[in-house]
Amino acid sequence: MQLQDIHKLVGGKLQMSGAVSLETDFRSVHSLRGASSSDISYVSHKKFLKSGAVSKAGLLLLEEGLELPGRSFIAVKNVQQVLILLLESLYPPVHHLSEVTSIQEKSSVTVHPDAVIYPGATISSNVSIAKDSVIYPGVFIGKGCKIGEGCTLHPNVVLYHECEVGNHVIIHAGSVIGSDGFGYLPQADGSRVKIPQVGNVVIEDDVEIGSNSSIDRAALDTTLIKRGTKIDNLVQVAHNVTVGEDNVLCSQVGISGSCTLGSSVILAGQVGLADHVEICNQVMIGAKSGVPSSVKTSGIYSGIPIMEQRLWRRAMGALKKLPEFMKHKANH
Amino acid sequence: MQLQDIHKLVGGKLQMSGAVSLETDFRSVHSLRGASSSDISYVSHKKFLKSGAVSKAGLLLLEEGLELPGRSFIAVKNVQQVLILLLESLYPPVHHLSEVTSIQEKSSVTVHPDAVIYPGATISSNVSIAKDSVIYPGVFIGKGCKIGEGCTLHPNVVLYHECEVGNHVIIHAGSVIGSDGFGYLPQADGSRVKIPQVGNVVIEDDVEIGSNSSIDRAALDTTLIKRGTKIDNLVQVAHNVTVGEDNVLCSQVGISGSCTLGSSVILAGQVGLADHVEICNQVMIGAKSGVPSSVKTSGIYSGIPIMEQRLWRRAMGALKKLPEFMKHKANH
Amino acid sequence: MQLQDIHKLVGGKLQMSGAVSLETDFRSVHSLRGASSSDISYVSHKKFLKSGAVSKAGLLLLEEGLELPGRSFIAVKNVQQVLILLLESLYPPVHHLSEVTSIQEKSSVTVHPDAVIYPGATISSNVSIAKDSVIYPGVFIGKGCKIGEGCTLHPNVVLYHECEVGNHVIIHAGSVIGSDGFGYLPQADGSRVKIPQVGNVVIEDDVEIGSNSSIDRAALDTTLIKRGTKIDNLVQVAHNVTVGEDNVLCSQVGISGSCTLGSSVILAGQVGLADHVEICNQVMIGAKSGVPSSVKTSGIYSGIPIMEQRLWRRAMGALKKLPEFMKHKANH
Repeated sequence: MQLQDIHKLVGGKLQMSGAVSLETDFRSVHSLRGASSSDISYVSHKKFLKSGAVSKAGLLLLEEGLELPGRSFIAVKNVQQVLILLLESLYPPVHHLSEVTSIQEKSSVTVHPDAVIYPGATISSNVSIAKDSVIYPGVFIGKGCKIGEGCTLHPNVVLYHECEVGNHVIIHAGSVIGSDGFGYLPQADGSRVKIPQVGNVVIEDDVEIGSNSSIDRAALDTTLIKRGTKIDNLVQVAHNVTVGEDNVLCSQVGISGSCTLGSSVILAGQVGLADHVEICNQVMIGAKSGVPSSVKTSGIYSGIPIMEQRLWRRAMGALKKLPEFMKHKANH
Repeated sequence: MQLQDIHKLVGGKLQMSGAVSLETDFRSVHSLRGASSSDISYVSHKKFLKSGAVSKAGLLLLEEGLELPGRSFIAVKNVQQVLILLLESLYPPVHHLSEVTSIQEKSSVTVHPDAVIYPGATISSNVSIAKDSVIYPGVFIGKGCKIGEGCTLHPNVVLYHECEVGNHVIIHAGSVIGSDGFGYLPQADGSRVKIPQVGNVVIEDDVEIGSNSSIDRAALDTTLIKRGTKIDNLVQVAHNVTVGEDNVLCSQVGISGSCTLGSSVILAGQVGLADHVEICNQVMIGAKSGVPSSVKTSGIYSGIPIMEQRLWRRAMGALKKLPEFMKHKANH
Repeated sequence: MQLQDIHKLVGGKLQMSGAVSLETDFRSVHSLRGASSSDISYVSHKKFLKSGAVSKAGLLLLEEGLELPGRSFIAVKNVQQVLILLLESLYPPVHHLSEVTSIQEKSSVTVHPDAVIYPGATISSNVSIAKDSVIYPGVFIGKGCKIGEGCTLHPNVVLYHECEVGNHVIIHAGSVIGSDGFGYLPQADGSRVKIPQVGNVVIEDDVEIGSNSSIDRAALDTTLIKRGTKIDNLVQVAHNVTVGEDNVLCSQVGISGSCTLGSSVILAGQVGLADHVEICNQVMIGAKSGVPSSVKTSGIYSGIPIMEQRLWRRAMGALKKLPEFMKHKANH
């Protein structure tokens, strides 16, 4: 989309800088950190201006009143609302998937001769599937996905469009990779407008994902599951999350949006992380714990909210004695 | 089913009133509140007699010993057990779905020419799908379902029979709408008899449902998701629940049977509600909280069980200090 | 696999006893308790030697340095790593499922004439389906599964190979039975090697399983769901678990590996059990509770970790008052 068309669409005050002209073409939107010079990004609040200044984005949408001297930008009122408009123009819905039942018919699909695609799987256009991978019945692979070597996608796994799976990845039945992140812009009347989720999911080598788990695509960039990580059944990984190498996410764990996990993190069953939480390397969180904020020191934690596990154990022991203790102390 | 056949089936003491005769036909069972004059309902305990008296139901099953003068009723021993018998007669299992792979063949299916049904979707008889809706491969739509305009049902979504979906509804991959509610009648020997779940699910306009979520059909009436509500991945909505307008149910939330949520309720991740809980408008429940009883005042709550969030924060701060505090106080 | 080939594969010190010779054939691996004389089992630590001594296993892998006089064994360094090697040899991946779309073509499939298999279901080789069972579209039934009489497998249910389902079992849409248990052997470099999960799942008569639940196959023996148990939506049952008769597992319950539940156990919504927990008969655990260790006395429990529900209620009441109490006491 040429800058002049973008400006026509979003209105506001335009400033051009460097080689950017009204004819310059921008085709994708990324986060400030993820954007390159051919991308658009945005600054919704002055607290993000500093990140905007160092972003490589070729074009920035700024909230009205903000400026970035020396950069190409458009300043608009209610930048998040305007961004939705722009995303809807740049990323039309991926409905016409041109799927093929018989993969041989489709020149746009690249399946290695030693890969096995069972009948009843749906492979969309521009998909590639490498050597020795096995795709079971009922699997749906959306447009433009890439599957590496030696992968197994068990029955009824769903990959939305543009997702990437490395080598020797196992995804168990019913898991969904790349569904839309849970992002809405609240309106004055109490309703919510969907923010198009135009990123993707990348799963690196040697990852295993259990059955009926959900990993959402990023809003703008990539939800990333790094090498060697093992994810159990019924786990939720929200949009924009990065899960580090060799993590263990036990069953029914929930990771909220934009969390970042280091290496060798272990989350026991039913643990929940609030959004934007960062967990450093070598952290273990006990079962059913709630993590409201970042963890910066390796160790073992438990509780809602978490504390060091040793303290939590003592606190839980004390809690059991509390009714008698209070009764006793009340009398003295 | 004619009243005389119902009486033959269930036995007990029959009283007829008004225009009701042995030939009067009754075809469905509803709750006391949901029943109309052509429906059957039931009163299992004298505490529900008052609701029975104001119910519009044309026929009531009463527990033996109860009476409703001026009403048509059958009084039987163990009315809930008898009800199961009656439900099984009135609602035979919906197995022979007469599904169609090629939808053109089926005169009973109404699909708008501008709707897209991908190969590999199963559309049962008496289904209607309106303009611009997209049905992905692996989707199953049961007998008699109605889908509005501009909906997207992503791969492997399942709608059981008789469910209704409004306009501009998005349901992500693997979610299940209308599976049987979790209802059983305990028997003296410790086993449980399934209570047929003969209601449905209605999803209003502008609702979005994430991946791998489950919304159960009502036992007798309707599980209702109102306009504009957004539901994340892996969420459980049990039978007979009403979720209000513009709610936000984050990932892994669980709502037990017969709960009623007002407008603009936000349940953060992994929140759980006990059954029959009512939540008023404008309530926010913090992540991982447990709600054992109704919330009648707008506000922010947290904890298991919930308290006002401000109090919960102070209580959690105190809990951390409790071991030292008790140790210190024990010495004095 | 003949003993001489096993020895060649795993190395170590071989001792033969009784009728066992280098030509003796062993084809399967089971737990010490589950093994019969034609099976292999293993002892990874001297604390399990006693169980090894009473095991019926025909061949034992022992950790180097351990001995079992009078038994046939191979002693190797790092027995768990060696076991993975052996499992991979004995149990090649079950990929070539020889599935049939039209079941009549397949002589190895036994479907009762009064069973209904809808188009779009995949039935693998050596499957048997008894009278009056109904298999919906999108269901996948793996190699060698057995389905009893009067069962209903709703759309998109997945049964991995070799699982067994009794009579009158209902499995709701999207549930996955027999996916791999979550088992890995940590390596020195922080990565994890998958332990082949070669057991199965057995579901007894009159069980009902909700939608989008996951029940993992055992590592070596059987994950067992006993007669009459009712399981709600989005429930996790890990590998090697035994769920007793007439249990009720409410929505989003998570049961970790190797747990054993007695009869008439009720787990309310979102309850979690740590691994290897044993629950005796007639136990009820309140919603959202965490069970870290075995429960040996019938009763009602709540909390994270659980305590008697009466005590938990008092403790939670006290906790609410704790901030004021501590403030007051600090001043005195």
